[in-house]
Amino acid sequence: MPTIKDVADRAGVHAATASRALNSATRGMVNARTVTRVLEAAKALGYAPNSAARSLRTRTSSVAGVIIPDLRNPVFPPIVRGIEDGLREAGYMALLGNTDGDAVRERELFDAMRGRQTDGFILATSRRDDALPAEVPTVLVNRRTDAGGVPSVTADNSVGVHMLVRALVHLGHSRIGHVAGPRHLSTGWERYRAFVDAMDGAEPVTFAEAFTEDAGFEATLRLLDTVPDLTAIVAGNDLIALGCYAALASRGLRVPEDISVTGFNDIPFADRQRPGLTTIRIPHYDIGLESARLLLERIANPAGPAKRIVLPVELVTRGSTGPARN
Amino acid sequence: MPTIKDVADRAGVHAATASRALNSATRGMVNARTVTRVLEAAKALGYAPNSAARSLRTRTSSVAGVIIPDLRNPVFPPIVRGIEDGLREAGYMALLGNTDGDAVRERELFDAMRGRQTDGFILATSRRDDALPAEVPTVLVNRRTDAGGVPSVTADNSVGVHMLVRALVHLGHSRIGHVAGPRHLSTGWERYRAFVDAMDGAEPVTFAEAFTEDAGFEATLRLLDTVPDLTAIVAGNDLIALGCYAALASRGLRVPEDISVTGFNDIPFADRQRPGLTTIRIPHYDIGLESARLLLERIANPAGPAKRIVLPVELVTRGSTGPARN
Repeated sequence: MPTIKDVADRAGVHAATASRALNSATRGMVNARTVTRVLEAAKALGYAPNSAARSLRTRTSSVAGVIIPDLRNPVFPPIVRGIEDGLREAGYMALLGNTDGDAVRERELFDAMRGRQTDGFILATSRRDDALPAEVPTVLVNRRTDAGGVPSVTADNSVGVHMLVRALVHLGHSRIGHVAGPRHLSTGWERYRAFVDAMDGAEPVTFAEAFTEDAGFEATLRLLDTVPDLTAIVAGNDLIALGCYAALASRGLRVPEDISVTGFNDIPFADRQRPGLTTIRIPHYDIGLESARLLLERIANPAGPAKRIVLPVELVTRGSTGPARN
Repeated sequence: MPTIKDVADRAGVHAATASRALNSATRGMVNARTVTRVLEAAKALGYAPNSAARSLRTRTSSVAGVIIPDLRNPVFPPIVRGIEDGLREAGYMALLGNTDGDAVRERELFDAMRGRQTDGFILATSRRDDALPAEVPTVLVNRRTDAGGVPSVTADNSVGVHMLVRALVHLGHSRIGHVAGPRHLSTGWERYRAFVDAMDGAEPVTFAEAFTEDAGFEATLRLLDTVPDLTAIVAGNDLIALGCYAALASRGLRVPEDISVTGFNDIPFADRQRPGLTTIRIPHYDIGLESARLLLERIANPAGPAKRIVLPVELVTRGSTGPARN
């Protein structure tokens, strides 16, 4: 690979001049014609500046760690794509890791990424009670912690659940249950709190162990055992709602004729389920994009206020909700 | 952050000894009890070895660049997850980038990742005629180039298409058309060649511009305009097949009563389409995992043979195929 010396030789300048010309922070110190000559020489030789060396000098590596539970959960790919595009705007790249929700694995990834001089982190894995390291720029995406102090970008869970409950009440439903997501995740907890708030009191709730179809199936059966006369179920997210579908089918109940079901997220193909899933559309890609921008802001100014950005959501009505049976 | 000197002080050894004890390659040179003491000291202090510095010394960074077209195409998340797990087995991490199929953006990403001391690349973006740089370890995943010389991991496209055609023939179909994927991608081309081979001659084919629903829709309309009496369509992949569904519906044709449709890949929720999609299941996760292992092998032995790994596929029969109408 060509070195800075090769570039300098070709451009007919000293290596220090070539180095200054190639670095956007010091380029202003060099004559514009020389800069052009050095850039052309670098291009002709295919010179790739050595970021590892630069990383040691400037203490930034232009890499951000992105830690998520599992890329196979359909909510994450469009978020990660938004993150990558947001980082790229500033010349950053994403180091990606999956944890499967395992805190030990998360810590290992975090440490390994820090050891590789990562400038900051975007975490989609946080539990409500996580104590996050304050010394490295970090932004939470989709999920957040109860304590403030760490910037986050999330969807408006509360408004979304209120929209769903209002739509169901409008269809004549009053016996509405909730299959909530896990209590230790802000997404599960905020939607649960909003449901309790929207229903104004004594409403039946079961908690799914995870945001998965299987956990939704199991928690729906528990809900039906407790309250057999429900006419609608607000599920903690779309995958839990698909678990509801399966649980209701196993009891011979039809959606929406016997029980209406709603989801949350509007994952890809939510419209292709049978029936199509009424849900809340969160702006997946924008959530990712905004979290990247917020991280870059944080890296530039670590002492700035820890903003919490909440993005608006919208109700998407499909075949899984209908008038309440009498 | 603690330094190697802090670790050495706490363990009561020289810095050079601590360094050797922390590096798995040189650990054997140090007394076992000393190794334990150093590792305990490193752990107690939260010492993260500085990979950027190590990268300069050893010329490896334990990072691989992973370049894909778009994470939002549902075929890629499980492949990327497999890649990450495969890299992790050897302490490697994945730098992820999306190109949207743009060759310029791909080249920029490639160069930027090289500049960050990436040890090698896994590319899911290659066109059949790509000339790949030979000087850096590279593995192609899912797609490959016509020329040999670069290791690859792909699904068995040929066997998959033969399975589909055989299943359709078995259902009484003889007027079978093909909405192929793009000619410049090996996935599109190999499946097209296999279709021609399986059909033994004069069969109608149109090519979709891309592996998307929209392109599949448009190419299906062209196919129907040319050959109105088809009873079955073999689509280049699942997304193209979903475009077929929409095109057939726009002409008032039912799937499978009027025309049977097949896909390729078995993306998540292929079973939830209306009707469920008969398709070829490729081992997404294993394709990713194997490509990571192959890259690590390549990094360890760049002069070894450029293996081409083809993984087996299976036929998944669902509601989109039925007996040929008379």
